[in-house]
Amino acid sequence: MKKAGIIGGVGPASTLDYYGGIISGVREKSNSGDYPRLVIDSVNMAEMIGYISENKLDKLIGLLTGSIDHLAAAGADFAAIASNTPHIVFERLNERSKIPLISIVDATCQYAAQAGCRRAVVLGTRFTMRSGLYSGALERYGIEAVLPDERMQNQVHGIIFPNLEDGIVLPEDKAKLIEISGKLISSSKADALVLGCTELPLAIKPGDIDTMLLDTMRIHIEAIVREILSEAKS
Amino acid sequence: MKKAGIIGGVGPASTLDYYGGIISGVREKSNSGDYPRLVIDSVNMAEMIGYISENKLDKLIGLLTGSIDHLAAAGADFAAIASNTPHIVFERLNERSKIPLISIVDATCQYAAQAGCRRAVVLGTRFTMRSGLYSGALERYGIEAVLPDERMQNQVHGIIFPNLEDGIVLPEDKAKLIEISGKLISSSKADALVLGCTELPLAIKPGDIDTMLLDTMRIHIEAIVREILSEAKS
Repeated sequence: MKKAGIIGGVGPASTLDYYGGIISGVREKSNSGDYPRLVIDSVNMAEMIGYISENKLDKLIGLLTGSIDHLAAAGADFAAIASNTPHIVFERLNERSKIPLISIVDATCQYAAQAGCRRAVVLGTRFTMRSGLYSGALERYGIEAVLPDERMQNQVHGIIFPNLEDGIVLPEDKAKLIEISGKLISSSKADALVLGCTELPLAIKPGDIDTMLLDTMRIHIEAIVREILSEAKS
Repeated sequence: MKKAGIIGGVGPASTLDYYGGIISGVREKSNSGDYPRLVIDSVNMAEMIGYISENKLDKLIGLLTGSIDHLAAAGADFAAIASNTPHIVFERLNERSKIPLISIVDATCQYAAQAGCRRAVVLGTRFTMRSGLYSGALERYGIEAVLPDERMQNQVHGIIFPNLEDGIVLPEDKAKLIEISGKLISSSKADALVLGCTELPLAIKPGDIDTMLLDTMRIHIEAIVREILSEAKS
């Protein structure tokens, strides 16, 4: 099995889901009885979000490149960032990284295309929605991206920070997210909803909304599990 | 803050508790708004338990030393093993490690002494109970250790593996652990119960037994949090 490296801590709640999901995913798919070796480098979320908020992208790239180097030094054969937002600098990280990186955006777009999606509403942090992170990638797969207007973007972002990032799901936050998603889906006739922030599945669950949910974290974990099992490296 | 390094995966369920407990512990005690940087190297539990079962202690030391080296390479200022059983080779790891190690056994014995314990029942894996891991350490603090007899040791061990290590708590397992603990406490007049396996608190909760519970995992996490906050290293 390959050893996975995970940049975690953004936020801690979804890092727990990645860890548990990777272990159980590998255990289900492998009959060896072995547990996967993996290393998680958990960064200071406050520092990282500060760089993104102030648009200090070079600082952000420095922080994430340092973390990838730590993972490689700890024996990781490949790495993945357990969060959507930092993927706004994914290409520049990929150029600098000594080990292959698995993108949550690419994994999600591939999955959406295979599932036959044509038009997808994208929710995420303000940084993810404004940067066009998913819009461009979905378009390359022939899928139209539908984004909330600025007011809705602020509402979604204000629910993710600080509540969801700290693992807190308030009933009124959940109701607001479902209301916004429902409006956008019905007005755009979208056939899918991208939960483009690893904390959104804490609030939006299968059955909450009558359309295909693209749980980016779940799709990313499956891609990581496949990579761990992709060759017989011990 | 110092960067913590955690050897995890033994088992995965308690690794999740360590991660969540360290993050929230630091957040509660620090007013900076920062999240601790930490690195977890999760090892193959099947490989590790194999070495212990077959008494291949040099192999066990090699595996754990490799993991400590990975943590140091990933920038950890100190390390801790998120499990009791591997502490049977703690002294030899400590001699070889480039970074300080925080022992779950030492942390627990210090805590027990400060709490005024005189006699403690020790539960854990067969390896932990047979090796005298806690007995010797408790005695150095003037605390008498009470161990289950061989039949009871086998019962406790058979509940930890495979169920508790995989995070599964069956009602009959919980009842059996409470029955064994209760018998030992009443016959020995012990004033404390050492939950000497990081998975035991999944089954034995405060209130289940009418004596002081020494939750080794919780005590270890508190010691790790103190070490992270012990100097202003950024």
